[in-house]
Amino acid sequence: MTQALRGFADAEYDARLDRAQSAMREAGLAALLLTTEPEVRYFTGFLTRFWESPTRPWFLVVPASGAPVAVIPSIGAYLMSQCRIDDIRTWSAPDYRDDGVGLLADTLAELVPAGGEIGIPDQIETHLRMPLASFRRLETLLEKRHLTGDGAIMRHLRMIKSDAEIAKIATACDIADRAFARVPLIARPGVPLAAVFRDFQILCLEQGADWVPYLAGASDRGGYGDVISPATEAQLAEGDVLMLDTGLVWDGYFCDFDRNFAVGGTGPRAASAHERLLEAVQAGAEAANPGARACDLFRAMERILDPDGEVPVRGRLGHGLGMQLTEWPSLIPSDETVLEPGMVLTLEPVTAPRDGRIMVHEENIVIREEGPMFLSEFRRGPMPVLG
Amino acid sequence: MTQALRGFADAEYDARLDRAQSAMREAGLAALLLTTEPEVRYFTGFLTRFWESPTRPWFLVVPASGAPVAVIPSIGAYLMSQCRIDDIRTWSAPDYRDDGVGLLADTLAELVPAGGEIGIPDQIETHLRMPLASFRRLETLLEKRHLTGDGAIMRHLRMIKSDAEIAKIATACDIADRAFARVPLIARPGVPLAAVFRDFQILCLEQGADWVPYLAGASDRGGYGDVISPATEAQLAEGDVLMLDTGLVWDGYFCDFDRNFAVGGTGPRAASAHERLLEAVQAGAEAANPGARACDLFRAMERILDPDGEVPVRGRLGHGLGMQLTEWPSLIPSDETVLEPGMVLTLEPVTAPRDGRIMVHEENIVIREEGPMFLSEFRRGPMPVLG
Repeated sequence: MTQALRGFADAEYDARLDRAQSAMREAGLAALLLTTEPEVRYFTGFLTRFWESPTRPWFLVVPASGAPVAVIPSIGAYLMSQCRIDDIRTWSAPDYRDDGVGLLADTLAELVPAGGEIGIPDQIETHLRMPLASFRRLETLLEKRHLTGDGAIMRHLRMIKSDAEIAKIATACDIADRAFARVPLIARPGVPLAAVFRDFQILCLEQGADWVPYLAGASDRGGYGDVISPATEAQLAEGDVLMLDTGLVWDGYFCDFDRNFAVGGTGPRAASAHERLLEAVQAGAEAANPGARACDLFRAMERILDPDGEVPVRGRLGHGLGMQLTEWPSLIPSDETVLEPGMVLTLEPVTAPRDGRIMVHEENIVIREEGPMFLSEFRRGPMPVLG
Repeated sequence: MTQALRGFADAEYDARLDRAQSAMREAGLAALLLTTEPEVRYFTGFLTRFWESPTRPWFLVVPASGAPVAVIPSIGAYLMSQCRIDDIRTWSAPDYRDDGVGLLADTLAELVPAGGEIGIPDQIETHLRMPLASFRRLETLLEKRHLTGDGAIMRHLRMIKSDAEIAKIATACDIADRAFARVPLIARPGVPLAAVFRDFQILCLEQGADWVPYLAGASDRGGYGDVISPATEAQLAEGDVLMLDTGLVWDGYFCDFDRNFAVGGTGPRAASAHERLLEAVQAGAEAANPGARACDLFRAMERILDPDGEVPVRGRLGHGLGMQLTEWPSLIPSDETVLEPGMVLTLEPVTAPRDGRIMVHEENIVIREEGPMFLSEFRRGPMPVLG
């Protein structure tokens, strides 16, 4: 993988817009109304951590033909003016009388003919990032124009990554690989888990992460209770399995994978659970060819995790990733999404070495014409031992 | 300020619930329906970075009497079971047929009598964190029960912080103060801004931050273009003003303030702009007594920033903070929120030392009976010089 460049060529944004507008015309939509960070960034390149502030709504209108229009708080005008968009309309937010809704309604009235349908991402893994009362007011202001779903257009667009996007995710994965390789320098018996979390984030930054939006993990005897808990001050103890799961960002794109470590040494159950998890990842990857379905990958991993059909496998065993930590599709029995080249997925099998204790292993892959390719460094072998 | 402890006593959660339920009865609401991270955490203590994943909706129902009920994906059951809540109902998410909506509707039907009103935060600085299509379905499932606004109950509850909350914010501020004091170790002429961002986040972690959700800043000649941009590879140059603005988190609570640095030396315009910003902070703080209004603080700062009424001051000159980087109220002319003890605010005056260049200084204060108290270390004097 060659070194990724920051930003995207204009041609990438043009291609995204072309694909969106083709899909909109096919779906009979006159425009898309977008409100969340990745949706706005997808068409404009508007990259800022300021979305951490919930105060202000941000809007992007993508008409079925012609250029997108940003309707945004004036605090974002400077940065947006450097992005792939020319038509930027601003208001001074927060405005308690009208926080952008009137300006947005006027913009939609201008871009969408009477009778037109305006698509909003409204299905699973989406939400509307604006106050509900503002949305209700927008509905009343839009005379003869109708707000409806986006027919999963954004899902389909974002699920297939360009080579430039994949290179950014690969860069994030490389950074995380290097950070994980250095965990033995920061974690050993007696170190509090909170210190490990802090130092691991430092490792990620030292290795080149722009920031570290996600870190979860746990350390407990022969496995752990869950995979989403924050750190406690509990010290790593001999016989623990330490798991760290990170989503770090490089140029706006995530990796999302974890590593398990044996603290002091490995008990036989945890060692065998780990071996089984790696086998399941291998089986998931081998199934990840174009034309296979998301549920096929679930089944391939399930056959390793539960060969005798004794302990039903629950939860999802992987998912898409990209501009967000988790994206469509889901590796669950009911997801029949057909894999296409350019999809980036996690493989994330889970097993329970004992009652109340689980272990999870996660890797990142990209689907290519010729088959799957690992973006994270997948190595068979026992858990690294710490201390 | 004594060292803050992690977590909260049960009594704190009980008090929050009491206040919420009193307000609900007064407003005629039978329940609150909450969907966002700080809302769910406020009543339960459910603290996880897993909200970074947009895949799954999470629900908390707070009835007007009785205990709250969590309706959540099963992946969160383990962590939620360790929180201040007993009634936890789960589904295996994502579920494409019904992603929690049926379970939520059943729960609401059980807790809310027919004819009851269910309040959802719907005003400025809020949003509904669930797919719009799921919300529309919920509306149809709720026979004889009505979804309405929460009458700003959550706003009012969260705006007044307890001593334990203030101690956490103060801890976050102390950590950021120590990190800012070390900026001369990582920034000098010739260092790329991206390296400064990376190293500053490391400083924050080294000084005790749990994580660093927000960092923005800029470095440019005699001021900067905006305050929300990410880092570029441009090198710091003599004559630049470097600004770093961070929202780091300790035990789920933010600080939010910035510092300006003179790279190499200070030009007279930037030096005088900086002096004026500090004067404005001082004036804002002096006005920040219980009984004053948010707009009074705006006016107090405006009088320093624009003594002759020549250059109208735009934007907001500060805001609340706490579980989120920015919260209510806003220091703008139209916000007449009356300050009460326990409110935590930023004072964030902005000025333009020259055309197209701004400078911003930001501090954090808490309102006490006896007047305002700085949580960040406010020191008068010239900008520190780097290099």
